[in-house]
Amino acid sequence: MKILVVNAGSSSLKYQLYDMNDESVLAKGRVERIGMDTAILVHEPTDKPELKEVSEILDHNVAIKKVVDCLVHPEHGVISSISEVEAVGHRVVQGGDLYSESVLVTPEVKAGITSLFDLAPLHNPAHMMGISACEINMPGVPQVVVFDTAFHATMPEKVFMYPLPLRLYKKHKVRRYGFHGTSHFYVSHVAAQFLDKPLEDTKIITAHIGNGGSVTAVMGGKSFDTSMGMTPLEGLMMGTRSGDIDPAIIPFVMGKEGIGPMEANFMLNKHSGLQAISGGSSDMREIVEGMEKGDKGCKLAYEMYEYRIRKQIGAYVAAMNGVDAIVFTAGVGENSAVLRLSILEQLSWMGVDVDPELNKIRSGEPRLITKEGSRVKVLVIPTNEELVIARDTHEIVKKSHK
Amino acid sequence: MKILVVNAGSSSLKYQLYDMNDESVLAKGRVERIGMDTAILVHEPTDKPELKEVSEILDHNVAIKKVVDCLVHPEHGVISSISEVEAVGHRVVQGGDLYSESVLVTPEVKAGITSLFDLAPLHNPAHMMGISACEINMPGVPQVVVFDTAFHATMPEKVFMYPLPLRLYKKHKVRRYGFHGTSHFYVSHVAAQFLDKPLEDTKIITAHIGNGGSVTAVMGGKSFDTSMGMTPLEGLMMGTRSGDIDPAIIPFVMGKEGIGPMEANFMLNKHSGLQAISGGSSDMREIVEGMEKGDKGCKLAYEMYEYRIRKQIGAYVAAMNGVDAIVFTAGVGENSAVLRLSILEQLSWMGVDVDPELNKIRSGEPRLITKEGSRVKVLVIPTNEELVIARDTHEIVKKSHK
Repeated sequence: MKILVVNAGSSSLKYQLYDMNDESVLAKGRVERIGMDTAILVHEPTDKPELKEVSEILDHNVAIKKVVDCLVHPEHGVISSISEVEAVGHRVVQGGDLYSESVLVTPEVKAGITSLFDLAPLHNPAHMMGISACEINMPGVPQVVVFDTAFHATMPEKVFMYPLPLRLYKKHKVRRYGFHGTSHFYVSHVAAQFLDKPLEDTKIITAHIGNGGSVTAVMGGKSFDTSMGMTPLEGLMMGTRSGDIDPAIIPFVMGKEGIGPMEANFMLNKHSGLQAISGGSSDMREIVEGMEKGDKGCKLAYEMYEYRIRKQIGAYVAAMNGVDAIVFTAGVGENSAVLRLSILEQLSWMGVDVDPELNKIRSGEPRLITKEGSRVKVLVIPTNEELVIARDTHEIVKKSHK
Repeated sequence: MKILVVNAGSSSLKYQLYDMNDESVLAKGRVERIGMDTAILVHEPTDKPELKEVSEILDHNVAIKKVVDCLVHPEHGVISSISEVEAVGHRVVQGGDLYSESVLVTPEVKAGITSLFDLAPLHNPAHMMGISACEINMPGVPQVVVFDTAFHATMPEKVFMYPLPLRLYKKHKVRRYGFHGTSHFYVSHVAAQFLDKPLEDTKIITAHIGNGGSVTAVMGGKSFDTSMGMTPLEGLMMGTRSGDIDPAIIPFVMGKEGIGPMEANFMLNKHSGLQAISGGSSDMREIVEGMEKGDKGCKLAYEMYEYRIRKQIGAYVAAMNGVDAIVFTAGVGENSAVLRLSILEQLSWMGVDVDPELNKIRSGEPRLITKEGSRVKVLVIPTNEELVIARDTHEIVKKSHK
């Protein structure tokens, strides 16, 4: 079965075509600047030359049409007819408390995703555009939605509730949802295979550190707590997001700067984090470079970023009363050996015995970076959210055919 | 030397008169409902009968006049003339980045405290009223201010900075200050005496859990990090304060509920925390009672409260890469054996071996509640912020006389 995985943002769209016989990727690509007359499409078939095109792509409908054209293209294509694609799997950021697992798209599910626009105003509307565009361009092909929040549906009430007036939960669904769920699920389950225990006894902390970042406490294979909250703003310091701050700062600053709630939200999401402290860059490679050249802003940004990840890990060791393994994944987590070392050297008291040489090795494979005998194992595991989406889609479509 | 310690709030005022020869308390008391015609004064001399009076007390000036009258009262008084009081020490909540230690009150210091009204609108104006009232009623007596924030002045930049646009720090002094400093200082230094190490090598986590609550990481006798931030809202779930939440909840709720920044701030400070989740009580004794009777709201409130303190402790173990001792203090911390046990049992992996019997003992003395050989010692230490204020005042006034 061939499955197309789609991740639709408001002005971009990424895709991968899987052959589920061997879980191989036949092609992947992305469309950027949707809505502009100079949109960019990059199509990368696995065994054929890449295709790059700049053209007018005014909406997601046209974007998906272009993707379909690429997939069946005489020179760059990987299938002879779009009918070979038997299902489409979509990433959806916010499933609220409606979805604790992946589901087949139906009119009810579309209404459900739409009802969550309020909670994820930047993401869910874009996902719906992606779904509609696939319905138009690939009529009759079953579609599945895989939620970033679903893995966190197992969090207990004491974890997902905020200490706020209950009407905010009852009326407006204010609670912790958590994000990056497919990634935390994937890497924690790969990590569990490195441990000599039954899955239900494992305690794993997964640090998904990319431009956004979150840490999850995974107990017995299930999400127990995660640092992102109602929105992806909570928790760690990120590229342009503040993460945790004193909540009282918001009304204080609104008064001082004469800004409204929308502007405050924008400031916290887009003009904070690494970018604010470093004085311009939200990219960890640039921050580390700057720090090594003696830039004070970059040094402070690095130290704050590292310190906040480390504290989050410590919090989850206390949350689970133990940890068997810590996992680093995503762009920064997989690639910044410097950051990992800074964090892990300061967790020695808790039983992390990092091997600086193993930590330096670059590889696309899951790998252990602690010394033999380390009480806590630390792993670097490349994440693969698209594969999880493809697998879930495959399973659900197979079942629905029965 | 006799020293009067004053803690002036907006509508209340507490006091203690110390004889610094032996640090004994000659009398203590409080005035409540200042500004009303039915204000209450309670005066408790150590060796004489208590005095309780309901009368009109419209401002802090009158309140201090009443306190002076009590102190020299023929029946309830403890000194023959107010001239025996050689200094007054005041608690001041917010010292901003202006004061890293206690200081003698001068016109400059009064201007300094006043310049911080913005950062502590509920506290600093009341403290200034207390200072003025003492100047009027005890003219010429030197006064000293002791700041809740001063102990935290040693926090490094990576800890006190928020990942927010730098102009908020430069223009509006938005940074972490921390509070309960005199308490964290006092109990951490008492705890250090229980450890067989030089002070500079100690790592101590102090949990001041009262109606407000904060946890501090004390490294080498100095505050390294603390859970309260720019204001006392950040960090733990408290009686009526939320503590940490997803910052994005604030603009979201403001939009949904149609409230402004002042109302949002009020909601987070006065209508959240234990009170919101339990359905009415902010008192840990009532919460535990309710939970034991099967009340679900109380149970959830208790679990959230416990869980958030525990995570904060874990975060600071990671922050300092270790911990020698954990200290519980203040109303709840000193008295709730149930809460302490819930927290400590789940820190066993980190090396806390709590002794449930020792934990149950009630006493006004510092005491160890872990078993012999526990990797991490846990202590219950009654706090004494007034004594710290009296000592600082004594020291500073002695020096100024030279």
